Amino acid sequence: MCIGFVPKEFLNTDAQGQVMTAYTATVTVRLKQGVLDPEAETTRQALDRLGFELESLRSADQFEIDLDAESASNAEERAGEMAERLLANPTIHDYTVAIEER
Amino acid sequence: MCIGFVPKEFLNTDAQGQVMTAYTATVTVRLKQGVLDPEAETTRQALDRLGFELESLRSADQFEIDLDAESASNAEERAGEMAERLLANPTIHDYTVAIEER
Repeated sequence: MCIGFVPKEFLNTDAQGQVMTAYTATVTVRLKQGVLDPEAETTRQALDRLGFELESLRSADQFEIDLDAESASNAEERAGEMAERLLANPTIHDYTVAIEER
Repeated sequence: MCIGFVPKEFLNTDAQGQVMTAYTATVTVRLKQGVLDPEAETTRQALDRLGFELESLRSADQFEIDLDAESASNAEERAGEMAERLLANPTIHDYTVAIEER
């Protein structure tokens, strides 16, 4: 049997002897400064009516992503790409990525 | 001019000699283990279709609350009450509170 050339993309990274580590990437997506957040304002007013004293309230979406990667920086890079492509809208959102081992 | 009795509620806490510190309380509200999260599942599938490799994805709501308090523990207690009363639904949610000085 002839085993021909196998493009690198079709090899499992594990099969290349790469040790994969399990990480959790936490992507926090916030509205940019100056973008109106009527939902947060409604929540602030509701807390105010319940008698709580607070200066201001901002809301954010958080995504906890479990992924396997060769290194923390690789995991961070991939989570950043996920934010750019899907999780955040760069016109109105800022995002931060935090990485920790699982 | 007669200055009569001023009920305590109308006095600014600062005026009582209490030193107030500015804190930011971050309340993170997550679905309890076992509660279905179709939105997160849809997001995971969309990332999968875009070619990202990930094990799982969980979503959470985060509230950043600016408040003045006598101490970090007082700020934490008040933010916890806000979570109990309004921000989280104890039937389906868990929450965590993190405090830092502004």
